Amino acid sequence: MKILRTVYAEDMEDIATGGAILGTGGGGDPYVGKLMARQAIRQYGPVRLVDVQELADDALVVPVCMMGAPTVMTEKLPQGDELMNAFRALEAVLGRKIDAVLCGEAGGVNSTTPFVVAAASGLPLIDGDGMGRAYPELQMVTFTMHGVSATPMVLCDDKGNSLVLETVSNAWTERLARAATVEMGGSALLAFYPMSGAVAKKAVVAGTLTLCAELGQALRQAKAEHLDPVDAIIEKLGAAVLFTGRVKDVDRRTEGGFARGTARFEGLDDWKGHTFRLDFQNEFLMAERDGKIVCTTPDLITLLDADSGAPVTADSLRYGLRLVALAFPCDPQWQSPEGIALVGPRYFGYDSEYVPYGAA
Amino acid sequence: MKILRTVYAEDMEDIATGGAILGTGGGGDPYVGKLMARQAIRQYGPVRLVDVQELADDALVVPVCMMGAPTVMTEKLPQGDELMNAFRALEAVLGRKIDAVLCGEAGGVNSTTPFVVAAASGLPLIDGDGMGRAYPELQMVTFTMHGVSATPMVLCDDKGNSLVLETVSNAWTERLARAATVEMGGSALLAFYPMSGAVAKKAVVAGTLTLCAELGQALRQAKAEHLDPVDAIIEKLGAAVLFTGRVKDVDRRTEGGFARGTARFEGLDDWKGHTFRLDFQNEFLMAERDGKIVCTTPDLITLLDADSGAPVTADSLRYGLRLVALAFPCDPQWQSPEGIALVGPRYFGYDSEYVPYGAA
Repeated sequence: MKILRTVYAEDMEDIATGGAILGTGGGGDPYVGKLMARQAIRQYGPVRLVDVQELADDALVVPVCMMGAPTVMTEKLPQGDELMNAFRALEAVLGRKIDAVLCGEAGGVNSTTPFVVAAASGLPLIDGDGMGRAYPELQMVTFTMHGVSATPMVLCDDKGNSLVLETVSNAWTERLARAATVEMGGSALLAFYPMSGAVAKKAVVAGTLTLCAELGQALRQAKAEHLDPVDAIIEKLGAAVLFTGRVKDVDRRTEGGFARGTARFEGLDDWKGHTFRLDFQNEFLMAERDGKIVCTTPDLITLLDADSGAPVTADSLRYGLRLVALAFPCDPQWQSPEGIALVGPRYFGYDSEYVPYGAA
Repeated sequence: MKILRTVYAEDMEDIATGGAILGTGGGGDPYVGKLMARQAIRQYGPVRLVDVQELADDALVVPVCMMGAPTVMTEKLPQGDELMNAFRALEAVLGRKIDAVLCGEAGGVNSTTPFVVAAASGLPLIDGDGMGRAYPELQMVTFTMHGVSATPMVLCDDKGNSLVLETVSNAWTERLARAATVEMGGSALLAFYPMSGAVAKKAVVAGTLTLCAELGQALRQAKAEHLDPVDAIIEKLGAAVLFTGRVKDVDRRTEGGFARGTARFEGLDDWKGHTFRLDFQNEFLMAERDGKIVCTTPDLITLLDADSGAPVTADSLRYGLRLVALAFPCDPQWQSPEGIALVGPRYFGYDSEYVPYGAA
């Protein structure tokens, strides 16, 4: 199999940072993600990143990720062992060897969890994910749109408890796994959506992990060269600036296993005199400027620190931070009627059609 | 293996009625339990009841039961197929044939669920259970005191969803299974506590199903002979009358997957001018007469209709019913320090020591 790139421990900082940019406020803290993957790669060796099109059609592909409120993930440092427990337990349930590891979602932690499993198992890791971003619920992956069942799925916690789920739909998997995750203390490790290479070739959002690495690198290089790091990200993503402002107020709660809330901003620079609001359920889902919706899921809304360009998660929002809000287009799969039904604004309770950002 | 008795469809009414008497207000509605087991026996043939001491030491024994608020069980008629799904799935997880079926708890439904599985599988059913009564939580079985793990456990719902649990303690199994049961709509079917014949011989409360049958028969014969049915039960159990009264008030809620509440009574006959109160969490746990605790778990508190002697579950309590409250001693295993820690009054939040009924 042709290797796209070999990923070493020192590459994980860029990937985790880029993951957090695509993580749209959720997907976990990149510092945690970086530490976890670095440790695994130092212990087991580097990870081979491969193009999904290189897989055999009958290869067995398994995504892994962490589930729960990012607030909790940051407090309960995930252990690589638990991820491997979930992965190996699913392999036992399936009764055959898994051939490649897949990323479930981009995010500060969830773009790095598959590196832990790829390092520990020695298996190749597919350059791609199931979202091209992060989403709060388990059924919100392109895999669902391609008819892949989330189950059999294994869910493990840090105490040694594990569950094997078999369900009638991915929405039921979300309900049962969420309830278990809440009982387990708010976070859990998953191996799920087992699929063939043939299906993965169609379903995967390709290139996500390389994009994560490039975003992290762009940020790092801009800083090294004393260039504007925010501009570097804007250019790399083809993103639009939604707002530049200061955090005025954050209303947040951990509820039903999610970090939910709203952040309000007052404008700075070009945006002086304007207001801005972001709603989140783990991820940023809706942006309102001066009381009018300007961007919604499935398009990506992300926050960068105005000075350093570092991605800012919903969890780390606090009064006074100076931030730039960016919008950039989602993977085209999400713009289909099936995609909008799964992750469009109406699913999240907004009485609003999805209008691709910039199209209105 | 020597057969204690062969149980036919027409025997299930007595067993379900007797189960509801030992069910101390919980354990499910005997009408539902009777229907479910009758149907299975008519379809698959009678059930062989055996003495636990007849088992080989290396036999594999598996209890089955229904979990959830009895309120919900009555509305969502359990299907025999789901029980068999759980049973067969656990057999697959264990990787060997199960040799005998065991009853988890006595109760209107849960004394009959094992008959469904025994009929459908053709396996013998052990005459006994894990409580000698009913209890609301999954870890509250004599099996726990004998070091038996509730897991691997399979939990199925009526929609086709299933879970295999592996946990670090029976208390964790209760937490995770309860959360899943609540998500599944309030009730689920379980196969759990796999154990050897050697362990079953020590752990099982022997004779429970025969006692259920005898209690049902005593009630039926008393009615046929125009004798006092309540007296027949009192005599059969060696029970004491706690109170005779009329239901004045029932405060009930389905909460955390349990039917919780309090019933208040005003005295009749010998008890005129006195008051009585029963607290329940699925099962009756504490009885107070004139404001003073008179009986607590693990001793059994049960309610009979004053006229018909029919057992009255906590769910069917309603204003105006004329009832007799009985107390009778629990299985001696529950009186050990380990037993009291699992199911004594303090576990349920009462600031009170357990005093065996009649010993005060």
